[in-house]
Amino acid sequence: MTIRLDGRNPQQLREVTVERGWSAHAEGSALISFGATKVLCTASFTQGVPRWKVGKGEGWVTAEYSMLPRATHDRSDREAVKGKIGGRTHEISRLIGRSLRAVVDVRELGENTIVIDCDVLQADGGTRTAAITGAYIALADAINWAREQKIISAKAQPLRDSVAAVSVGIIDSEPFLDLAYTEDVRAETDMNVVVTGAGKFVEVQGTAEGAPFDRDELNALLDLALAGTNQLTAIQKAALAR
Amino acid sequence: MTIRLDGRNPQQLREVTVERGWSAHAEGSALISFGATKVLCTASFTQGVPRWKVGKGEGWVTAEYSMLPRATHDRSDREAVKGKIGGRTHEISRLIGRSLRAVVDVRELGENTIVIDCDVLQADGGTRTAAITGAYIALADAINWAREQKIISAKAQPLRDSVAAVSVGIIDSEPFLDLAYTEDVRAETDMNVVVTGAGKFVEVQGTAEGAPFDRDELNALLDLALAGTNQLTAIQKAALAR
Amino acid sequence: MTIRLDGRNPQQLREVTVERGWSAHAEGSALISFGATKVLCTASFTQGVPRWKVGKGEGWVTAEYSMLPRATHDRSDREAVKGKIGGRTHEISRLIGRSLRAVVDVRELGENTIVIDCDVLQADGGTRTAAITGAYIALADAINWAREQKIISAKAQPLRDSVAAVSVGIIDSEPFLDLAYTEDVRAETDMNVVVTGAGKFVEVQGTAEGAPFDRDELNALLDLALAGTNQLTAIQKAALAR
Amino acid sequence: MTIRLDGRNPQQLREVTVERGWSAHAEGSALISFGATKVLCTASFTQGVPRWKVGKGEGWVTAEYSMLPRATHDRSDREAVKGKIGGRTHEISRLIGRSLRAVVDVRELGENTIVIDCDVLQADGGTRTAAITGAYIALADAINWAREQKIISAKAQPLRDSVAAVSVGIIDSEPFLDLAYTEDVRAETDMNVVVTGAGKFVEVQGTAEGAPFDRDELNALLDLALAGTNQLTAIQKAALAR
Amino acid sequence: MTIRLDGRNPQQLREVTVERGWSAHAEGSALISFGATKVLCTASFTQGVPRWKVGKGEGWVTAEYSMLPRATHDRSDREAVKGKIGGRTHEISRLIGRSLRAVVDVRELGENTIVIDCDVLQADGGTRTAAITGAYIALADAINWAREQKIISAKAQPLRDSVAAVSVGIIDSEPFLDLAYTEDVRAETDMNVVVTGAGKFVEVQGTAEGAPFDRDELNALLDLALAGTNQLTAIQKAALAR
Amino acid sequence: MTIRLDGRNPQQLREVTVERGWSAHAEGSALISFGATKVLCTASFTQGVPRWKVGKGEGWVTAEYSMLPRATHDRSDREAVKGKIGGRTHEISRLIGRSLRAVVDVRELGENTIVIDCDVLQADGGTRTAAITGAYIALADAINWAREQKIISAKAQPLRDSVAAVSVGIIDSEPFLDLAYTEDVRAETDMNVVVTGAGKFVEVQGTAEGAPFDRDELNALLDLALAGTNQLTAIQKAALAR
Repeated sequence: MTIRLDGRNPQQLREVTVERGWSAHAEGSALISFGATKVLCTASFTQGVPRWKVGKGEGWVTAEYSMLPRATHDRSDREAVKGKIGGRTHEISRLIGRSLRAVVDVRELGENTIVIDCDVLQADGGTRTAAITGAYIALADAINWAREQKIISAKAQPLRDSVAAVSVGIIDSEPFLDLAYTEDVRAETDMNVVVTGAGKFVEVQGTAEGAPFDRDELNALLDLALAGTNQLTAIQKAALAR
Repeated sequence: MTIRLDGRNPQQLREVTVERGWSAHAEGSALISFGATKVLCTASFTQGVPRWKVGKGEGWVTAEYSMLPRATHDRSDREAVKGKIGGRTHEISRLIGRSLRAVVDVRELGENTIVIDCDVLQADGGTRTAAITGAYIALADAINWAREQKIISAKAQPLRDSVAAVSVGIIDSEPFLDLAYTEDVRAETDMNVVVTGAGKFVEVQGTAEGAPFDRDELNALLDLALAGTNQLTAIQKAALAR
Repeated sequence: MTIRLDGRNPQQLREVTVERGWSAHAEGSALISFGATKVLCTASFTQGVPRWKVGKGEGWVTAEYSMLPRATHDRSDREAVKGKIGGRTHEISRLIGRSLRAVVDVRELGENTIVIDCDVLQADGGTRTAAITGAYIALADAINWAREQKIISAKAQPLRDSVAAVSVGIIDSEPFLDLAYTEDVRAETDMNVVVTGAGKFVEVQGTAEGAPFDRDELNALLDLALAGTNQLTAIQKAALAR
Repeated sequence: MTIRLDGRNPQQLREVTVERGWSAHAEGSALISFGATKVLCTASFTQGVPRWKVGKGEGWVTAEYSMLPRATHDRSDREAVKGKIGGRTHEISRLIGRSLRAVVDVRELGENTIVIDCDVLQADGGTRTAAITGAYIALADAINWAREQKIISAKAQPLRDSVAAVSVGIIDSEPFLDLAYTEDVRAETDMNVVVTGAGKFVEVQGTAEGAPFDRDELNALLDLALAGTNQLTAIQKAALAR
Repeated sequence: MTIRLDGRNPQQLREVTVERGWSAHAEGSALISFGATKVLCTASFTQGVPRWKVGKGEGWVTAEYSMLPRATHDRSDREAVKGKIGGRTHEISRLIGRSLRAVVDVRELGENTIVIDCDVLQADGGTRTAAITGAYIALADAINWAREQKIISAKAQPLRDSVAAVSVGIIDSEPFLDLAYTEDVRAETDMNVVVTGAGKFVEVQGTAEGAPFDRDELNALLDLALAGTNQLTAIQKAALAR
Repeated sequence: MTIRLDGRNPQQLREVTVERGWSAHAEGSALISFGATKVLCTASFTQGVPRWKVGKGEGWVTAEYSMLPRATHDRSDREAVKGKIGGRTHEISRLIGRSLRAVVDVRELGENTIVIDCDVLQADGGTRTAAITGAYIALADAINWAREQKIISAKAQPLRDSVAAVSVGIIDSEPFLDLAYTEDVRAETDMNVVVTGAGKFVEVQGTAEGAPFDRDELNALLDLALAGTNQLTAIQKAALAR
């Protein structure tokens, strides 16, 4: 059996920890780690919606992803210093926002906005999947806060389901779950899968970094991903139950 | 049987036309249309590679996607005027670049760069898939040009395969091929699939815009996409044979 | 007699073609070509005016000019990627806007704005003069559209005249009409002249690229330009009559 | 006879003053005023040329124009604060640069660059023409400095002629020389004319702000402009002789 | 006794001159010089306040500092051209704004804003202290103007005191007042001190450029600074009395 | 005796904790907290120096400060999204860089650069002083790392002393040490003092937010600050000894 550098078998997640309520200021927050990957997720609940949503009686959920300059092995320049946001940052911010909105009924939020900030404090692969998984917890707590503060009705149910995400990939023709950075670099195919608590797909983003992949490989990766998000859903539930 | 607004059945592509060699200046070019969607793809072959590739003896292929301000039903502001590129533009540019590189052996290019520009002159859904499909033709011609100019060796085979892309989606629980704009807006799930000439996947990007989707729906969409890219591959071959 | 590279005599325009209504979405549009120079002009009619015009009961006409990166012989970087618009682009956009406003009675437009986008798809000299000449056609059609839609009154006459433009220049002491790119590069003096249908000047922009020019040379260039715009006015009329 | 608000007749320049050598640091400088318009022109002589000129053995002359925020009647926002340069600024900077280069033989400069900064301290119409007229003086002194410092040869003659500029315009069908701000606002046609010491044209930029203009009006304006630049040339000579 | 390059003794200010009302347009203005350092300060009085101050019945005072590109010995790039404001500029603009607000009772201004622009025309050390000292004069005159125009009540007393600033520094262990550029470069410690007319501190900003400084050195510098601002206060009074 | 909201007396620091080596990637790092203020400081040691330092045989130390958007009570927009860095961020980044360089002998670093990133994860006043205090620890460890890696000589002593910082302020005429956010808001005068391990001043930045302050108040604040930095120096020593 293949043993990975960190001792895992190919079907195994890294250790996942969640510090719920890490932030003293945010309405919801979680410091989540997938192994050495650490992402601080905060949810800011604010009254009002973006201009293009005004007057519809609905809310909005959006997300911003960023990495600290030395989250990575080599320091990268700050996007604020460069004066523009890179394509990768944009892409991941949009992915997180779509993933969360897929489980939110914005009509139940009233004309309020929840901004989720996912800041990667340390990166070791899987930062976007850790971000989505942690962001859901921050989001759930911000909604709880709004209910307690009576900003939204006690009966409002903005969350239709939970959502979690995991990466999978093919290395040397074998499928692996939850890739660490060094594994991600070696993967021929890399896929990020976002799945609801009920086990349905929200996003499937597979990319051939090396050789193109066939239908069987795709199926094997999806099986592995669903097993992984199933565990992550359980971890989210446990964290929110504490 | 479901008949679409434009008369197609759900499994049918829109009419695809290719004007190969549209540009008098570019080393390769194609004006491609998927129905009312029209994308001008040009390939610029230039000597040298980006700084981080220098000295490896390899080439590089990259892409930039953009829309004319009035390509769409309502005019959108120019990104040059806003002073920054939006997330969607970044995301699609990166997707096109990755899709093309998946079929290019950069070692066969020498230290040369091919920049593919995909400018949407008119948009009616599927701009990114038309762009990838047309970009491949421009790329192939730029490589032919370089071979004729003896900038790369007559025996060099930088292209390992062709690549084409199509969108698929679920509307009212039924899978549709090659969505026009009004269909795209209605789709619960929307997927862009990039496939090689040999029928293998390069990118699978599925997104639940409405309800999450299950494994059966995913499979139906992939079947439809593969049938579509199969036809697009034939259209590319025919265009390049002219 | 001097024969030019493309077979024209010095007093001759290049072949001018106009595809009126090229765009499926814009309220007015024209794909105009002056020889190998091709410019897509679209006119977007929108309700409302810029903030500084609000409440005056008048409309506004403005223009934006841009070149596709590979419109030219060598690829140029996108201004959106550079994050700022260059001086040349600014200058030409302003020239087009002023030229059109010179024949528009904004009081007849109501508080509506027409934005003209001139995107150079292929460049071979004279892009700004082709843009102005084509923009007038798009503008006229957008006004017709507004009248048909009853957004402006059936009796409103926002257009006081037509407007067209041509370049002229001195090469080896001889005046030439409608310079192609290779001629433009060689010209000692280069002039762009914008003229109304009635034959009056809207803009005269002469620049000594090499030796300064005297009054006689200026007069010879103006004669040539007026002959050229006279023909362009006829072409515009014919296109709008179709 | 028409008497202007400031007591001038239509053919008269405003009082022109020149403080040559205003700057303690610049290699050449002049604080020039055309009436209440005051422009500080400095010429910075630096070794080396822009990258695209390297290795040709030639120099380069370029210019940057700017206005202090409260040079005008109402305060305008700083372009540095807005983060981008406006079209008008770009256009005038380019005009000044072209005008100066028209009288410079860059081969006589060696691989050196002269940057001319024209900063409008107070504006009352004609800022670009005052800038060009003052810039020539700063440029001439920077070239003198380089000759004295033996950075260029004692025999080098980079200046082929002098250059000066003036505005002219038509107000109520009458031509006026050197428009003050309130006149400029009222002018139907506005023209900036750049002329060499020998009386030849470098730039002719006429714009119909109101009604288009005919050939006779154009000729009357050019006559007036040449008379004005003739006087400005004399003022430049006198200043440089001090 | 130490004699400085410019003949001063260590406790001496450079010659200070004030041209009050330099600008024809601004509501208050002063061209101030500290030796060869020349700063044009204009105060623009405008109705309305920034959005975050609206509805409080109070006014606002803010400042912007900038240097002309050739104010310094070597030319520096324009911040407008670079597209962003540097840290030093930001820092000094904020310092000037805070210093002025320290002597303004914004409740007495009504909902009006005074913007102070401090543009360094020539720099020889101490530009920020000259700017603050001159800005106070421009500010006082803009307030006088508003009172005369009856925009604020004749009894309103927005100014609680005057404010002036001076630099001090330690060179070769000896404290010096009002450092010129060459002295500033050599200073081990450099301090800018902003003091009210009544002799109280508004800002004390001391920085060890070389060796850290002790309490005695700090005290000696503060003594020197207070003596300097005392004289500057007298110069301000004299200027405002003219 | 005055008791503060958090139970401290006016002369007391908040609890200070240091997690040295928090980052798995950085050459030196510390997560420092001053009460609820938490700053992650990382030191990145890289070979080479900025262009203007090349060839002098010396190194460079610089710093960048930033706040996560929800570090504060209300969410603030990301500077990367706004596309520019605010004045406050610039000012603090420069302060941290100067403070560290004051205790570094750059000649002992060789041509290497240390970049210190100070990212505020949670803010409750004193973020810049916590950042400086933590940055010193990260810096010391990065230097240790370079010595161990033999990138600099085992005998090199780049650190001349340690450096720490604390805020002090006057509230209701009484001096307080280490202000929490709510105290900072109420302070009439606010001072940040940067002090070496030997007790000498590196920076003294006092600002009258309300009433100007006199010499006695300044002295009382400096006494308090020196007592505070004395304790912080001991905490730094203890952390580095672990």
